[in-house]
Amino acid sequence: MALFTLDALRARYAARPQSVLDVVEEVLARIEACDDPAIFISRVAPDDFRAGARDLLARAPDPASLPLWGVPYAVKDNIDVEGMATTAACPDFAYVAAKDATVVARLRAAGALLVGKTNLDQFATGLNGTRSPYGAPRCVFNADYVSGGSSSGSAVAVARGLVAFSLGTDTAGSGRVPAAFNNIVGVKPTPGLVSAAGVVPACRSLDCVNVFATNVADGVAVRRAIEGFDPEDSYTISAPARGLPPQPRVGFLAAKDREFYGDAQNETLYGQAMAQAEKLGWRLVEFDYAPFAAIAALLYEGPWLAERLAAVDSFLAQKPEAFDPTVRGLIESAKKFSAADAFRGQYRLKDLLRAADREAEKFDFMLLPTSPTIHTVAAMKADPVRLNAQFGRYTNFVNFRAMAAIAIPAGFRADGLPFGVTLIGPAQSDEALAPFAAAFHAAAGCGAGASREAVAAPAPTPVGDHIEIVVVGAHLAGEPLNWQLTQGGGWLVEATRTAPDYRLFALANTAPPKPGLIHEPGFVGPGLEVEVWSLPADSFGRFVNAIPAPLGVGKVTLASGRQVTGFLCESHALAGAREITAFGGWRAFLSAS
Amino acid sequence: MALFTLDALRARYAARPQSVLDVVEEVLARIEACDDPAIFISRVAPDDFRAGARDLLARAPDPASLPLWGVPYAVKDNIDVEGMATTAACPDFAYVAAKDATVVARLRAAGALLVGKTNLDQFATGLNGTRSPYGAPRCVFNADYVSGGSSSGSAVAVARGLVAFSLGTDTAGSGRVPAAFNNIVGVKPTPGLVSAAGVVPACRSLDCVNVFATNVADGVAVRRAIEGFDPEDSYTISAPARGLPPQPRVGFLAAKDREFYGDAQNETLYGQAMAQAEKLGWRLVEFDYAPFAAIAALLYEGPWLAERLAAVDSFLAQKPEAFDPTVRGLIESAKKFSAADAFRGQYRLKDLLRAADREAEKFDFMLLPTSPTIHTVAAMKADPVRLNAQFGRYTNFVNFRAMAAIAIPAGFRADGLPFGVTLIGPAQSDEALAPFAAAFHAAAGCGAGASREAVAAPAPTPVGDHIEIVVVGAHLAGEPLNWQLTQGGGWLVEATRTAPDYRLFALANTAPPKPGLIHEPGFVGPGLEVEVWSLPADSFGRFVNAIPAPLGVGKVTLASGRQVTGFLCESHALAGAREITAFGGWRAFLSAS
Repeated sequence: MALFTLDALRARYAARPQSVLDVVEEVLARIEACDDPAIFISRVAPDDFRAGARDLLARAPDPASLPLWGVPYAVKDNIDVEGMATTAACPDFAYVAAKDATVVARLRAAGALLVGKTNLDQFATGLNGTRSPYGAPRCVFNADYVSGGSSSGSAVAVARGLVAFSLGTDTAGSGRVPAAFNNIVGVKPTPGLVSAAGVVPACRSLDCVNVFATNVADGVAVRRAIEGFDPEDSYTISAPARGLPPQPRVGFLAAKDREFYGDAQNETLYGQAMAQAEKLGWRLVEFDYAPFAAIAALLYEGPWLAERLAAVDSFLAQKPEAFDPTVRGLIESAKKFSAADAFRGQYRLKDLLRAADREAEKFDFMLLPTSPTIHTVAAMKADPVRLNAQFGRYTNFVNFRAMAAIAIPAGFRADGLPFGVTLIGPAQSDEALAPFAAAFHAAAGCGAGASREAVAAPAPTPVGDHIEIVVVGAHLAGEPLNWQLTQGGGWLVEATRTAPDYRLFALANTAPPKPGLIHEPGFVGPGLEVEVWSLPADSFGRFVNAIPAPLGVGKVTLASGRQVTGFLCESHALAGAREITAFGGWRAFLSAS
Repeated sequence: MALFTLDALRARYAARPQSVLDVVEEVLARIEACDDPAIFISRVAPDDFRAGARDLLARAPDPASLPLWGVPYAVKDNIDVEGMATTAACPDFAYVAAKDATVVARLRAAGALLVGKTNLDQFATGLNGTRSPYGAPRCVFNADYVSGGSSSGSAVAVARGLVAFSLGTDTAGSGRVPAAFNNIVGVKPTPGLVSAAGVVPACRSLDCVNVFATNVADGVAVRRAIEGFDPEDSYTISAPARGLPPQPRVGFLAAKDREFYGDAQNETLYGQAMAQAEKLGWRLVEFDYAPFAAIAALLYEGPWLAERLAAVDSFLAQKPEAFDPTVRGLIESAKKFSAADAFRGQYRLKDLLRAADREAEKFDFMLLPTSPTIHTVAAMKADPVRLNAQFGRYTNFVNFRAMAAIAIPAGFRADGLPFGVTLIGPAQSDEALAPFAAAFHAAAGCGAGASREAVAAPAPTPVGDHIEIVVVGAHLAGEPLNWQLTQGGGWLVEATRTAPDYRLFALANTAPPKPGLIHEPGFVGPGLEVEVWSLPADSFGRFVNAIPAPLGVGKVTLASGRQVTGFLCESHALAGAREITAFGGWRAFLSAS
């Protein structure tokens, strides 16, 4: 049974839009055949599901007209769907939603087809998937093992090929840990990038809606469909995308920080993941995980537990017996925290974030184990709080630091269970992180889902608020003004040549000595040595503004034909300048003179 | 007795550095002669003060070598000074500080001379100045009236000419209300711009160190000396300065929002302030104050009171009798708030901030009464909580929204008491706001301090992260591409001409039609019509990057001789282009053709 992917569905639909009706039947048959009864809490009635597909054919006959046209998906049952019950895995808490959550409304508008609502650790409190009266979904590789949570059903539904993608929620790691335990991708957006309006809060200041998919490109496509400022959610933000350099510095756990709770198989696989990262050309850099670990500890040991209490306290007062005992115990423990404790927690967080910021200067993104280990359902039920906390060791800090993360499959253990890693980048690096995650997933060769199927997926195209600039003289790497680019947060994209119709002159009376590049259509020269650098938009602006006459910037055509903003020179300044085109570039001229 | 100003002191010191010893004696004599005994809590011993001046002469003989060389100042007694007691106006709380607060260390390094530590509402809890066992400093215009607080002594010390400037702290308005009540300037930085390390917290997440001075330029000069990222204070930030347009939209209170608690004199003076703003060329715009008022209410009615409790709770448990009864009552009332309440307060704040953001799109900065009214010491003591809350009506929201504010004198009432307004701008607009505040203060004609002395002060030079660009064709105001500038947050700085040595060409095959500007040294033409626009650095970067060949940017010399980044054209594109220099500009060419 092949996993659903966007590419495959699009190809099918392009050939025959009506095949969406076949896909609907396939989904229904797969769910029917599935032997894990704990995945869904509620389902869209089969005839309504079929009607949805027919409606889509009627309202948007061209499958190319909508980004997720006819794509079957599931949502975690703490996300509102108009007319369906939202349970948060607590039957007594359930209510019928009067309107769609923003993310569901956006998916509906994008043409996706909802299959049903999935099981979760009650009130999204847990990372293991066993804390639900609707049963515990199982790891798709071994039914003795937990699925991970809290977005348990959403992850398993994707890993078993029941849907093409699903939505989860992620506060402590609920959108990443179950991805790791089921060999799929978990795209966890920067907090505030995706609206949580219409989602039952866990810790409202930290909650993120996340996407599970079989590959990074699909996860990113779905995130793009649901993301964006939402007037209904005051935690959503509008911020420019952040870029990442093509040869990234990748932070990995130092030996002292590698805690796998005795799980030697995962520890070995983490080492292999690092080796694979190096093969991809990533520069591994060690950092001190201590401040990140201290931030992580705040989530379940500090006053942030009171956010969970704030979300349900009137219901808890009314019906304490309605709660899963472990969940209730955790939430009730928050009653001991005063408002003063909450503010003290904020101060402690601020100090820890400052310390973490200093460590984070060492890397562009982190490569961490998603979970240090995995446990059986039986073990988890016997020791539910301690073992659960282990799963969050490398995930809990991420939303406190407002980071973007993508959990990806990273190999299999001797016992057949999967291992996953997560790439964790700075706020708004969601787009820039994706191609790295896609490359790693492809290189890991462990496929996706229960079938370990190799999913052919295109690398997502990154979008960022960086601007490229072609430099030709004193700003080249190693030349005297190159620091203006590196200090501005810039990095080298490529060393290349211009198209042939450019001429180069050594300008008179410049300090440090500078060349002038002139475009002369029709001229055929050697093409001149240039470098393309990338700068954040504001640094680019300041850099350009600081360029003295007679230099300036315009569009420079590269040997590849690509046009990039780059240094040009006013023609009047060529009087008295020596033409050095024949040298082929500034560096060659300098070393010859 | 002339007020001290930086300009006057600098002139004196430039003429004769040794005159700093005379200034020291003047300060001592003025303090001696002062009839308000409640201004200082502790003083630098006169001989130590003298020794400080002699040390300064020895270590930095050139007065121009340090920005605040020989400038006498005072600090509020919740700010640490090495070797002196910090009382926070609570004698039993007092401790001798082991090191300077960051701001004090920076002032010491800048050459300022500390006179003493000033009285305050205990633990900076209050806006009135009567909540101190060290007595109540009085309004310098009528000793029956409160000085305002909590930075009571610091404001009065400046208004009476005892020091050139002073530091206060401002959480709810403590750096603005006493400025208004004593006819001086209060510069309240954007939260995080100035370090609070070594300051006794009131609400640590909101506290700002502020500057009192007799004029805006002096307040800004001091703020520049103390501002900047501090590793010791995790709440300090590094962020680019934000600009403001030269013809600002200024938000004023709609009739429905004008609450002066029956104070008709202040209401009238607010109307006069608005009229003056219009005379300055500011565009008055109405907005809905309701969300700002709701934010303001959170500070003393919601869980933020627990920040004050968090700051002193172990001391409160030990020595409850050490507190001022009103302050103690307020702080103890915070015990009723749970951590869940604190988080719910955060959610409410987020929602209110979102609503306020929508209103804030209507203006560049606000012009609000600093305080709606003023009360006598007797009235305040009789009704301490309710009357205090009135003072904060237009100040309490400001730090929640991370805004910059400058309180300035704005006239006198028939009863001889002063009235003040505050300009409140977005985060990081501290520099950009200053020239507006200086212009308003000068126009108000009410002078400064107790003497109502007209203080000749230069307008501070604004610094911002905006970049200017000279446009010459389709980007001029009213032309088809002008939206690229306005949508990027740009504004028109000036309409002017280039220097004479520029030529203009109508480029062939451009849509919309575009001219090309060429610099030709030696050419003498009419100078070409251009406009200078200002854009935030990132918008400028994106704008430049979007310019298609053969256009680009370089440095353009204006008729004034000033060089600004502006549009230029590659020479090769002039083949087939018509020279239109004689028209004097693109618009003239268009209307003639």
